[in-house]
Amino acid sequence: MQVLASYVCGAWFEGKGNAHVLVNPATEEPLAQASTEGLDHAAALSFARERGGPPLRALTFAERGDLLRAMSRVIHTNRDGLLDLAMKNGGGTRSDAKFDVDGASGTLAYYADLGKELGPRKLLLDGETVQLSRGPRFVGQHVLLPRRGVAVHINAFNFPGWGLGEKVACAVLAGMPVVVKPATSTAFVAFRIAELIVEAKILPEGAFSIITGPAGTLVEHLQGEDVLSFTGGGSTAATLRAIAPVVRDSVRVNVEADSLNSAILGADAEPGSDTYDAFLRDVTRDITQKTGQKCTAIRRVFAPRAVAPQVLEDLGARLSEFVVGDPSAERVTMGPLATAQQLRDVRAGIERLAAESKLVVGDGPLEPLGVPRGKGYFVLPTLFAQTDAARAKAVHEHEVFGPVASVLSYDAAADVVAAVRRGGGGLVASIYSDDRRAIGDIALGIASAHGRVVVVSAKIADQMPGPGTVLPQSIHGGPGRAGGGEELGGVRGLSFYSQRSALQGDRAILEAVCEKG
Amino acid sequence: MQVLASYVCGAWFEGKGNAHVLVNPATEEPLAQASTEGLDHAAALSFARERGGPPLRALTFAERGDLLRAMSRVIHTNRDGLLDLAMKNGGGTRSDAKFDVDGASGTLAYYADLGKELGPRKLLLDGETVQLSRGPRFVGQHVLLPRRGVAVHINAFNFPGWGLGEKVACAVLAGMPVVVKPATSTAFVAFRIAELIVEAKILPEGAFSIITGPAGTLVEHLQGEDVLSFTGGGSTAATLRAIAPVVRDSVRVNVEADSLNSAILGADAEPGSDTYDAFLRDVTRDITQKTGQKCTAIRRVFAPRAVAPQVLEDLGARLSEFVVGDPSAERVTMGPLATAQQLRDVRAGIERLAAESKLVVGDGPLEPLGVPRGKGYFVLPTLFAQTDAARAKAVHEHEVFGPVASVLSYDAAADVVAAVRRGGGGLVASIYSDDRRAIGDIALGIASAHGRVVVVSAKIADQMPGPGTVLPQSIHGGPGRAGGGEELGGVRGLSFYSQRSALQGDRAILEAVCEKG
Repeated sequence: MQVLASYVCGAWFEGKGNAHVLVNPATEEPLAQASTEGLDHAAALSFARERGGPPLRALTFAERGDLLRAMSRVIHTNRDGLLDLAMKNGGGTRSDAKFDVDGASGTLAYYADLGKELGPRKLLLDGETVQLSRGPRFVGQHVLLPRRGVAVHINAFNFPGWGLGEKVACAVLAGMPVVVKPATSTAFVAFRIAELIVEAKILPEGAFSIITGPAGTLVEHLQGEDVLSFTGGGSTAATLRAIAPVVRDSVRVNVEADSLNSAILGADAEPGSDTYDAFLRDVTRDITQKTGQKCTAIRRVFAPRAVAPQVLEDLGARLSEFVVGDPSAERVTMGPLATAQQLRDVRAGIERLAAESKLVVGDGPLEPLGVPRGKGYFVLPTLFAQTDAARAKAVHEHEVFGPVASVLSYDAAADVVAAVRRGGGGLVASIYSDDRRAIGDIALGIASAHGRVVVVSAKIADQMPGPGTVLPQSIHGGPGRAGGGEELGGVRGLSFYSQRSALQGDRAILEAVCEKG
Repeated sequence: MQVLASYVCGAWFEGKGNAHVLVNPATEEPLAQASTEGLDHAAALSFARERGGPPLRALTFAERGDLLRAMSRVIHTNRDGLLDLAMKNGGGTRSDAKFDVDGASGTLAYYADLGKELGPRKLLLDGETVQLSRGPRFVGQHVLLPRRGVAVHINAFNFPGWGLGEKVACAVLAGMPVVVKPATSTAFVAFRIAELIVEAKILPEGAFSIITGPAGTLVEHLQGEDVLSFTGGGSTAATLRAIAPVVRDSVRVNVEADSLNSAILGADAEPGSDTYDAFLRDVTRDITQKTGQKCTAIRRVFAPRAVAPQVLEDLGARLSEFVVGDPSAERVTMGPLATAQQLRDVRAGIERLAAESKLVVGDGPLEPLGVPRGKGYFVLPTLFAQTDAARAKAVHEHEVFGPVASVLSYDAAADVVAAVRRGGGGLVASIYSDDRRAIGDIALGIASAHGRVVVVSAKIADQMPGPGTVLPQSIHGGPGRAGGGEELGGVRGLSFYSQRSALQGDRAILEAVCEKG
């Protein structure tokens, strides 16, 4: 069986024993194995810091951008093979696989362009020079410089490609070496991307490492100038926030965790209107794309009480059209969940929602296409109806990470704001409306509880990729339950990997210093 | 004895029993007492969130700025009384007291002006609108909105006035209600400021609370949209970072902790030059001002090896001129440490430094002026010499929070960069030089380890307040040992109290939403 090695300390490493087997979640066939037994995590981090950091910091933003462009290209050149792996190991359709793989190359390309734009310098100016005394000479200038540590990225199982690409893009452009730790169960795509990057000798030695297999003691060896970026479940996030390097040494942590994302149908968006159709399209896509395993997927669908029955009927009709099965079979439009554990969690989540809501779609017979009987981690697209958003509890608190959503009825804009906020902080909420007053009330009411608020209106509905798509120009993250973190957002994405410092002194001298940096 | 009550839930609260006695650290005479026995911390936070939040958020930045201006004025109007309290309870000279009290009113006034500048809106635009698709209509706009929680401020004993003012200025301007918890031992000034603010009815009910006395279970009741800002020792910081609301609910924490701040004398700055004189002035001031109890005070003085003996002689001569005693005595130029615990800690720290360095100044007889024999928490200005910066350990790791500094010899610019960085992250470092090349090398070498780097050169030396002074225009904080936090920095200071959200949608609709906000 293929072994997915780790790349640390400038060499490929294969653990001895205790191997984890990666499977095809549609058929449960073994695909590869990975082990980190015997891997020296402390040495891996030191090597990245000491060997990878200096050459990266010596490059300008434009030069670092060139590295990202080369990474983007090597992914794109090998797209077909990566899509195949993504489908096999991730369980998604070809379209799902593109979402992950093209997301990786696209985000890297975006940050390559940003590097070009930032140009031939190594230091980022933050704001204007500010005069600090009566005379004009004594001034302050904030700058951003790369942190002299290593960036550890612990990525989620659902986006092995994009998760690697978007985090590496920001870290490398900011000038920090990275150690990527993909989720073991779906690490094949990340491993293959790493292999391509390493074979092509794109990055300076030490600037890129990958640990394929269990993380072991990795995070315990973090030090003061390192950073840790985690995407995954809230309980793991809580564990990581409490490790000694974070608590004691101010190691920076970015968390992107659970989120009960909302889609709100405006009272003005009548069935049949373009806005209503965009709403149906986006909700349907979010429930089924990647079998609902997107951190940004819509979980709560808010509809005006009078329209809610129609929404349930329309969504139900669309969801019933999906063909569940092995994505390698041509007619299949939704694949399995990624792992056996995910299936257990999703089933438990559905039971929890069923205890307080009405199941509308999803209780039919489950006979996945092209799959040996009894195999695979399948679940049907599932839709619940909840008529009492104010009293419901699980729907606001428990993220079911699969093709599952609930339609909640609401009466007034103020009620929907309160109900949406009961999610305790989320990644994204979308509003489907053309009524500017209502949009303003709702958007301003919910924005402080979300990292992103998407307003879908008739005139631009066909230009928008849907709220579930994370664009590198806008931040990705959210407060509270969503982890309190922030990634991407153009140049904002570099902040986490940079140290802001306020330079104070003679205007001419500071200008010379900044020019040199 | 005067009771320092807490102001919570819109009323003054006096704890029953278990009172802590505040003393004059020069004479050990009791001044007042404070107790929080029976205080309902959960209720205090709820009241602030629910009663204080909405009216603050309903105000524009300009209107919130007006509140800050009123706070600044009420402090300035009552300046003499506050200075008197600051001297009595804090142990500082009148000049030290001004540094704290005028720092409070000055920072509030600065943010009042910023509020005026931000004008009649409630929402802060973050960057420009960015086009997100080929067509021009679909755009993204980042905005900052107030978090809908309460800001808890746990302040350090050394700046009861400024610490309150600078944090409240940013929180209130951003639109968050505050609960201020000053260090109990020196809480008199903070209590009096609170009394003035409450009596003048400046802020909406619930927008300002103060807890005078032990914090009890306060932080355990924090919730997802709340924030916690802590200034103090690293070990308390570590405890606060590990509390459940932070680890589990993503409550934001800002920490400003320990720092081994450095002053670096450039190789070009010859004794007798203006730059050298500025260096002597700043180092002397930082060792003695507030009896060395400034988080930004210079602890490590780096001098070229050849000049180090002269530096020791010059600093020694200046430090020996200080008259230590009760600041109410006219000739006294340096008062006691603030508490008996501080005295114990400083003495232990001096012993730790003495084990690896040479004591140059500070071993004379200690007979504080105007103080009953045996009373008061006094220590002499103390200076160490360390000729081996690379091998020394305690001097880079242990912050002695008193009138204590070490002169370290260095050979080349690269060595001083490495030695300075051994502090593990600091608040501020200053460079005294007129050699642009050397300044560039050192500043860029150390900036990523410091929140602020001050370049003092001949032409502007007389315009600068010294590196120990925190100006609201520049950020205050630092990585690693310094806690990894960030305060102030003009409008940057509002970020901690705000949630960034990316709005996406039709350009015209988003403009209308932002206009409304």
